Amino acid sequence: MEGFITTRILKGDICYSTDKQTLKTVPDGYLVCENGLVKGVFEQIPKQYQKLPMEDYSGKLIIPGLTDLHVHAPQYSFRGMKMDLELLDWLNTNTFPEESKYQDLEYAKRAYEIFVNDLRRGGTTRASIFATLHVPATKLLMELVDDAGIEAYVGKVNMDRNSPDYLCEANALAASMETAQWLVETQDAYEHVKPIITPRFIPTCSDELMSMLARVQKEFQVPVQSHLSENAGEIAWVRELVPESRFYGDAYDGIGLFGGEVPTIMAHCVHSTLEEMKLMKERGVYIAHCPQSNENLTSGVAPVRLYLDEDMKIGLGSDVAGGANLSIFRAMTDAIQVSKLRYRLLSEQLKPITMEEAFFMGTKGGGSFFGKVGSFEEGYECDALVLDESRIPHPQELGLKDRLERFLYLSGDDGVFHKFIKGHKIF
Amino acid sequence: MEGFITTRILKGDICYSTDKQTLKTVPDGYLVCENGLVKGVFEQIPKQYQKLPMEDYSGKLIIPGLTDLHVHAPQYSFRGMKMDLELLDWLNTNTFPEESKYQDLEYAKRAYEIFVNDLRRGGTTRASIFATLHVPATKLLMELVDDAGIEAYVGKVNMDRNSPDYLCEANALAASMETAQWLVETQDAYEHVKPIITPRFIPTCSDELMSMLARVQKEFQVPVQSHLSENAGEIAWVRELVPESRFYGDAYDGIGLFGGEVPTIMAHCVHSTLEEMKLMKERGVYIAHCPQSNENLTSGVAPVRLYLDEDMKIGLGSDVAGGANLSIFRAMTDAIQVSKLRYRLLSEQLKPITMEEAFFMGTKGGGSFFGKVGSFEEGYECDALVLDESRIPHPQELGLKDRLERFLYLSGDDGVFHKFIKGHKIF
Repeated sequence: MEGFITTRILKGDICYSTDKQTLKTVPDGYLVCENGLVKGVFEQIPKQYQKLPMEDYSGKLIIPGLTDLHVHAPQYSFRGMKMDLELLDWLNTNTFPEESKYQDLEYAKRAYEIFVNDLRRGGTTRASIFATLHVPATKLLMELVDDAGIEAYVGKVNMDRNSPDYLCEANALAASMETAQWLVETQDAYEHVKPIITPRFIPTCSDELMSMLARVQKEFQVPVQSHLSENAGEIAWVRELVPESRFYGDAYDGIGLFGGEVPTIMAHCVHSTLEEMKLMKERGVYIAHCPQSNENLTSGVAPVRLYLDEDMKIGLGSDVAGGANLSIFRAMTDAIQVSKLRYRLLSEQLKPITMEEAFFMGTKGGGSFFGKVGSFEEGYECDALVLDESRIPHPQELGLKDRLERFLYLSGDDGVFHKFIKGHKIF
Repeated sequence: MEGFITTRILKGDICYSTDKQTLKTVPDGYLVCENGLVKGVFEQIPKQYQKLPMEDYSGKLIIPGLTDLHVHAPQYSFRGMKMDLELLDWLNTNTFPEESKYQDLEYAKRAYEIFVNDLRRGGTTRASIFATLHVPATKLLMELVDDAGIEAYVGKVNMDRNSPDYLCEANALAASMETAQWLVETQDAYEHVKPIITPRFIPTCSDELMSMLARVQKEFQVPVQSHLSENAGEIAWVRELVPESRFYGDAYDGIGLFGGEVPTIMAHCVHSTLEEMKLMKERGVYIAHCPQSNENLTSGVAPVRLYLDEDMKIGLGSDVAGGANLSIFRAMTDAIQVSKLRYRLLSEQLKPITMEEAFFMGTKGGGSFFGKVGSFEEGYECDALVLDESRIPHPQELGLKDRLERFLYLSGDDGVFHKFIKGHKIF
């Protein structure tokens, strides 16, 4: 029954971002949530809220829920394995054979249950998820995520060329019709989960398929997610495949799937040119920065300092299984660490990102793709985590920022004690 | 009483390195340990061992214990905090103020108990540890580590210049006499712990102090640990301080504390010149590669491919608190990940290191500083870990190498189920 209550006060040591430089900390504060929306964070409970039920987490950190802007659910089964390959070989050797197994609904159920169970018990409250091209398994995944109470977009993947026979749609028309049918069936089917149009990436999607998906997008008005400028070999390939495009993002833009009125997430953006960045900024394209994946697949390090300073839209992605870890806490510290290596090894023009900036990206930055999400400012949807630091004891009293920073580095998903989404208590 | 038994057979899925390219895997194998020494790994129990007591861990991975070649115990309290500084500022702002607290034995006890408790329950069976300059707290740490049954070297730190008044030895003579006295008192005092001479690094140790420590080393015949070529600012400073040295390592070598007959660990070696490498190789100096610390303090990435290909002596270090995580499992995956970024961002001449190489460094590579340690070949001291994968379920059967790789990436210290050191069961 507890899950139906969306009005409550949470008491504890509260930390949240208001902008990318600013981490607000309120020791012994009160987070007031009414009908799933934040009314504010207060040092004393305001008069009008004094009768609301209160949960006392004194001494525990309370932070906004985390957003994973890019994760492949079917790849969860091989995360942390066979990491000695770069992107295109890794897709052919590891990814495509594994994804093909999801035509078997039994296997899909076994594997997706493990993924959703871990997603549920971690710090992620919002996610944008790739499934596979198989509609039945994608719908199963949507059901499981919905049952877990996670607010998410889930995408049936489209791919009709340069893919192995065993994992390839027959042709553009069949693929887009199947996608449209899937949208009809799922657009209003779940409480927490919505579909998202998901062309895998330009190399595996013919021009015809992309154009038809753009038409489907116009009709159904759903958002779009894909990959962009992750790896040098991939970028060169796109140049060959779409010779009329000025740059990789232009290939998406040419068919109308690159932001503007179409809410769009592009994962990686490691090697984006200045021209590509300019267009992403103009069109409000969301960048899903996936630092660990970009390490594991030897892709490089995205110029996140530039994206932040240009006020571009950016959040974090675990990119399982390019990334091994599902935790967005880990993605925050990975983002800081790789930015330091980029600074030292590649160019000292772009300063490393700070803890405040990493925390912002993992909460409010990515959360904003879902609306007013990822902060405790008034009017935000109340996604909140209560954190348990008992496994990382300290010999002295610490300030809230220090405690939060060490939680990011040392604890992560394992230390999430309670989780609320839109005011609902998940656990 | 269990702890006194050092003869047993462990049954399970056994993995260990024989050399840096070779990971041996024996499913359903038997690790025979007699009087603390490995007799071998067998597919069937040989006749002469059939009466030994057996512990059945069928279905669980069994691997050698891990060696942490470089960790600062007093810094454990601020790991994962205030990470936005480079080495020299970080020392002055974070490290020295914290280390000064260890003159208070009460504080030292509180803090060191947390460190040793975590060290005990993780995968590390051997460690080379920096304490602080305070003798009473250092002896307390030695006792605690000894009580935990961890085989370790612990060093009272020496520093007599360029250090704050509150954390600086009075002069070279007093410092070296105190160090000699400490060696007298501790050299044979513990079952598992030995002292190691620990000049912090050249910038904080006067020429006089270094010479006297070299004399003390000759007299007591104990090993030495210090820092080398971690950060550009530090290296430039050493050049100023010891103008007659040809390179940083030469400053240690000039006073006879750089390998040869003196077993020596040098942490970092990120920016070693070819000349320095050549001397390290000649003298058999151990490199403690500390990948996460080198990220966090924006130091760079050590050329580990070169060290491995040159058959230099190398192991892994957590370098807490430059590194946030005490786990050597984590150090293995960090080592792989940073080597990929070095390859991509700095120079494609040095190929990324493989999972086998990282596992080798964390087991047999670093272990060899302690003798025949870190493998399951015949005659090795029997340090072993039984691993629990139940928190990282998988929808399919996997091979041993894949299981081990995902354990490194996904589980680490939290998944250590049983731990044996020299055949003693720690838990």
